[in-house]
Amino acid sequence: MKKLKIASLPGDGVGKEVVPAAQQVLKAVARLHGGLQFDFTDYPWSCEYFLEHDQMMPDDALDRLQDADAVFLGAVGNQKLVPDHISLWGMLIKIRREFEQVINVRPAKLLKGITSPLASPKDFDLLVVRENSEGEYSEVGGRIFRGEDEVAIQNAVFSRRGTERVMRYAFDLAAKRQKHVTSATKSNGIVHSMPFWDEVFQSVSRDYPAINTDSQHIDALAAFFVTQPQRFDVIVASNLFGDVLTDIGAAIMGSIGVAPAANINVNGKYPSMFEPVHGSAPDIVGKGIANPLGQIWTAKLMLDHFGEEELGEKLLDIIEDVTAAGILTPDLGGKYGTDDVTKAILKGINK
Amino acid sequence: MKKLKIASLPGDGVGKEVVPAAQQVLKAVARLHGGLQFDFTDYPWSCEYFLEHDQMMPDDALDRLQDADAVFLGAVGNQKLVPDHISLWGMLIKIRREFEQVINVRPAKLLKGITSPLASPKDFDLLVVRENSEGEYSEVGGRIFRGEDEVAIQNAVFSRRGTERVMRYAFDLAAKRQKHVTSATKSNGIVHSMPFWDEVFQSVSRDYPAINTDSQHIDALAAFFVTQPQRFDVIVASNLFGDVLTDIGAAIMGSIGVAPAANINVNGKYPSMFEPVHGSAPDIVGKGIANPLGQIWTAKLMLDHFGEEELGEKLLDIIEDVTAAGILTPDLGGKYGTDDVTKAILKGINK
Ligand SMILES: CC(C)[C@H](C(=O)O)[C@@H](O)C(=O)O
Ligand SMILES: CC(C)[C@H](C(=O)O)[C@@H](O)C(=O)O
Repeated sequence: MKKLKIASLPGDGVGKEVVPAAQQVLKAVARLHGGLQFDFTDYPWSCEYFLEHDQMMPDDALDRLQDADAVFLGAVGNQKLVPDHISLWGMLIKIRREFEQVINVRPAKLLKGITSPLASPKDFDLLVVRENSEGEYSEVGGRIFRGEDEVAIQNAVFSRRGTERVMRYAFDLAAKRQKHVTSATKSNGIVHSMPFWDEVFQSVSRDYPAINTDSQHIDALAAFFVTQPQRFDVIVASNLFGDVLTDIGAAIMGSIGVAPAANINVNGKYPSMFEPVHGSAPDIVGKGIANPLGQIWTAKLMLDHFGEEELGEKLLDIIEDVTAAGILTPDLGGKYGTDDVTKAILKGINK
Repeated sequence: MKKLKIASLPGDGVGKEVVPAAQQVLKAVARLHGGLQFDFTDYPWSCEYFLEHDQMMPDDALDRLQDADAVFLGAVGNQKLVPDHISLWGMLIKIRREFEQVINVRPAKLLKGITSPLASPKDFDLLVVRENSEGEYSEVGGRIFRGEDEVAIQNAVFSRRGTERVMRYAFDLAAKRQKHVTSATKSNGIVHSMPFWDEVFQSVSRDYPAINTDSQHIDALAAFFVTQPQRFDVIVASNLFGDVLTDIGAAIMGSIGVAPAANINVNGKYPSMFEPVHGSAPDIVGKGIANPLGQIWTAKLMLDHFGEEELGEKLLDIIEDVTAAGILTPDLGGKYGTDDVTKAILKGINK
């Protein structure tokens, strides 16, 4: 019996609705497998937790998560309770960094039965590999002068190690796919970090002669995600550029409620974390209509990560059977609830 | 007779094809007006110029442009000849900065007869007001260490003066439109510049009680440009965020070949510069198929700037008659050339 310890962090808002749904799915999948078992430990860390404890997570939070085989997270953030930069840097971004989850992998492809906002969404199937620990997201910076003369300075920090690492990860993934890597740059406008990014990309690409490459400025690339997403295979991007691209990727998939993501620890020292692209969606909390598919697809990425690719594929097939059958939440134009969609998936698994 | 001195900089690639087209249109419009005259002086500054002179523009370039009533620019850049960051910082970005063109205004709306890549592009009509002189585009930064340990640092610099200025400009424009300003932020991930941006936005918005506001993180905002562009009126954005948003704006307009832009000098010390959103498009140079509409619509923004709003509106109506009639270049799915479209516009003016 392969027993996997999963630390569940539903977090805020719809996270608390979709994580339990995906847990049920994972349990059902494990039963189907026979030799697999998920042991979930739930942690209540969230903005509500903050209101009581004045911190997003207890001091020993990371120690408690450390032994898990993976962290399974819903969503973090509720501006009404806690400013976003405090809640996110106190939990989501903290875990990403402290657990050295330096890579964020986010697939975008259109599932059967889902209507894209694009008029003719040719079959796109792309993977954004986002640097997840440095770049534009940095605590380095501050302010100088007061009043009218005040200036805020924000440093973006790109290490060769971190940049090479995310690029190699992207090339390795491309080798198993369509053998193409696109680099998201902006070296025409941003003259220190981005020419450096381009240099590292060129040097890494020399180690992968079998992989084709191109570089696109982020503005053009964002537009291509709308006009011709089918031209991409793997895209490697900085922290910020990856963030923006994957929300556009989610949009063309029909809803951000579907988009999955994996925060990967590559050195084996800490658990990886699986969390969908969407946020806590305060506007629809408690209505029972949150889309569980993003979280369930994220569970599929977790299965892949544990070497259970076959089971992962099967789960994605079942997800697609359900979308093809039109069992969709309102964000996808459907009239079903979180429970309906989850039950349909469970039925598919137990069939 | 109102005589306007226009410094024309066709620049590179298709710039050299669409600027002459738009000049013809401006001359025809002036004849129609009767009391208006454009005197164009053309300058050959470009990447080809660089190959001969080792600089994008001569030392006295800005002095020579200084007396113009406006600069009318095509496109800059040809990576095959000169690295982008050199050509752009030596010409486009240099003029924007030295001439204190601190605001970049970029409308996005769908013209009749043009097919958007969006499945149901509700009537959107939005204006991105982009900060054009500071922010993420900065020369401050550098590298430290060598080899494996190398680190590149990029500073983004946000002054209260510059941030307030672009925001006030946006609010003033919104007051003449739908009275709504959306701020593009990313304060959940970028913790120095963006919380500062939010603070300034809140303080400026207190001076405009009649204008409604909201703030959206750039990732969500980029996605909304795809899923519900009709919900926006005026969007105020930093240099980089404005850059990315306006390329998505151009994409949903059907082609980046249509999108217009104005770089505005607000203190009256230097000329403003009018240049479309598209670049030099080396792939289609010399084929006679470059879309002149972006440059011609940009000419319309220049007319507005000179207080000739009525003439500007008329020109936009004529542009729309031509698109509605299906006289479109290949980027818009048509089979017409630059000349055909230009002639159709001229015919509309002279009718
Ligand atoms: C060419 C490039 C430097 C420029 C920019 O990023 O400002 C362009 O993309 C634009 O939007 O005008
Ligand atoms: C919530 C926010 C800090 C986060 C990010 O920008 O990384 C989110 O947008 C994401 O993409 O996971």
